[in-house]
Amino acid sequence: MKILVVGASGTIGQAVVQELGKKHEIIRAGRNGQDVKVDMTDIDSIKKMYEDIGKVDAVISTAGSAHYVPVTELTPELNEIGINYKLKGQINLVLLGMNYVNDCGSFTLTTGILMDDPIPQGASAAMANGGVKAFVKAAAIEMPRGIRINSVSPNVVQESLHKFGDMFPGYEAVPASRVALAYKKSVEGAQTGQNYEVY
Amino acid sequence: MKILVVGASGTIGQAVVQELGKKHEIIRAGRNGQDVKVDMTDIDSIKKMYEDIGKVDAVISTAGSAHYVPVTELTPELNEIGINYKLKGQINLVLLGMNYVNDCGSFTLTTGILMDDPIPQGASAAMANGGVKAFVKAAAIEMPRGIRINSVSPNVVQESLHKFGDMFPGYEAVPASRVALAYKKSVEGAQTGQNYEVY
Ligand SMILES: NC(=O)c1ccc[n+]([C@@H]2O[C@H](COP(=O)([O-])OP(=O)(O)OC[C@H]3O[C@@H](n4cnc5c(N)ncnc54)[C@H](OP(=O)(O)O)[C@@H]3O)[C@@H](O)[C@H]2O)c1
Ligand SMILES: NC(=O)c1ccc[n+]([C@@H]2O[C@H](COP(=O)([O-])OP(=O)(O)OC[C@H]3O[C@@H](n4cnc5c(N)ncnc54)[C@H](OP(=O)(O)O)[C@@H]3O)[C@@H](O)[C@H]2O)c1
Repeated sequence: MKILVVGASGTIGQAVVQELGKKHEIIRAGRNGQDVKVDMTDIDSIKKMYEDIGKVDAVISTAGSAHYVPVTELTPELNEIGINYKLKGQINLVLLGMNYVNDCGSFTLTTGILMDDPIPQGASAAMANGGVKAFVKAAAIEMPRGIRINSVSPNVVQESLHKFGDMFPGYEAVPASRVALAYKKSVEGAQTGQNYEVY
Repeated sequence: MKILVVGASGTIGQAVVQELGKKHEIIRAGRNGQDVKVDMTDIDSIKKMYEDIGKVDAVISTAGSAHYVPVTELTPELNEIGINYKLKGQINLVLLGMNYVNDCGSFTLTTGILMDDPIPQGASAAMANGGVKAFVKAAAIEMPRGIRINSVSPNVVQESLHKFGDMFPGYEAVPASRVALAYKKSVEGAQTGQNYEVY
C-alpha cells in the first residue's frame, strides 16, 4: 500500500513509519516533511499536498497538539491552538483528502488518553481528542467507497517521558512501538469507527 | 440560586426554565434573550453579558448546534459552524464566565446522543458533542473554588420530532421535561465531570 503519514518525523510518527515501512511505501509529511511539506493548520497547504502526491491507500495523522495550561488560565485564544491544530487539522486531512484515498482505503487519526483519564492543564487537549474520537465514530458510518476511518488513543509514550513525564504521575507509559501496532491494525485490518486505546 | 440559562427560549431551554424556575431565579439569555442578549459565537458579546449580569450561582447552556450534511459534502467551512457555535461557544461560556460564578457554583453544558449513536449527516455535530464532553471531564478536575461542571447529553426530544424526526429512525425520543431533570441534577447535586445521558 501507499501510505501518507502526516507527522512522520515525530516521536509516534517515527515508530509508525518503522512498523508500516516494513511492508508499505510511506510518504513522510510534516511542516518540514522529508517527502512532502504540509501545514495541517492551513487548508490551502493540505489541498496542495494532496494535489502533489495524488492517490494513496491510507492516510495516517500522527500530528496535532494543544496548549497545556491550567483551566483557570485557559483563554479562548489559547484554546484555539488545539482547535486549529489537533482538531481541525486532523479532520481537514479527512475532509480534503477523501477523494485522494483509493476505494477501501483508510484514514487513521490520533487522539490520546487525556480525554479518558484527565490531568491538570489537559482540558484543551482532552477537548480536541474527544472531538476527533466522536467525529471518527460518526463519519465512519457514511464514508464513501468502502473507505474506513479510525483513531488511535495513546497513553503517554516512554520516548516522551523526558519531555513531559512530570505531568503524568502514575501513568504506565507505553513504548511507541506498541502504539504503532494500533495504526497497523487500523490500516491493514477491516474495522471502522474505532478508537484504539493503547493504555 | 441565581441561574443563567443561555438558550432559554429553545425547545430544551424552555423545559429547563420551567423545571428550575420553580425554585430558582432564572436569567434568560440568547441572541434575542428575554433578560439578556448574547451571541455565544462572539467573545466580546459573552464578556459583555457577564459584565451586565454580574455574579450567578449556575450557568446552563442549552444552545449550540452544528451543520447537518453528509460527510462526503462536509467542508472545513461548514464544519466551522459546529466548532464556532456548539463547541467554542459553550466552552467560551465557561472560560469567560469562571470569575462570575459564585463559590461552589456550577456550569452545565449540552452535548447530545449523536456522539454515541451516530446518524448520517451527524459527523460535525458528533465532533462538537465529543469535544464538549471531553472538555467537561478534564476541566472538572481543576475548576477553582469548588465550582463544578457537567454536561447533559439528550436523545432527540419529542418536541423536536416534527423538525428532524426523520433523521432519527428508531430513536426513542424523550420528553424535554425528562431532559430538564438532568440539568436540575447537575445544578442542585454535587457531582462534577459527568455527562448525563438522557437516552
Ligand atoms: N507523545 C506522547 O506521549 C503522546 C501521547 C498521547 C497522544 N499523543 C499524540 O500523538 C500525536 C503525536 O505526538 P508526538 O509526541 O509524536 O508529536 P511530536 O514528536 O511533537 O511530532 C509532531 C509531528 O507533527 C509534525 N507537525 C507539527 N506541526 C505540524 C503542522 N502544523 N502540520 C503538519 N505537521 C506538523 C511534526 O513535524 P514538523 O515539525 O516537520 O511539522 C512532527 O512530525 C499528537 O497528536 C499527540 O497529542 C502523543
Ligand atoms: N432538540 C433536540 O432533540 C436535541 C437533542 C439532542 C441535543 N440537543 C442539543 O440541545 C441544545 C438545544 O437544542 P434545542 O433543540 O433546544 O435548540 P433550539 O430550540 O434551536 O434553541 C436554541 C436556543 O439557543 C439560542 N441561540 C441560538 N443561537 C445562539 C447564539 N449564537 N448565542 C446564544 N444563544 C443562541 C436560541 O435563542 P435565540 O434565537 O434568541 O438566540 C434558543 O434559545 C443544542 O445544543 C442541541 O444540539 C437537542
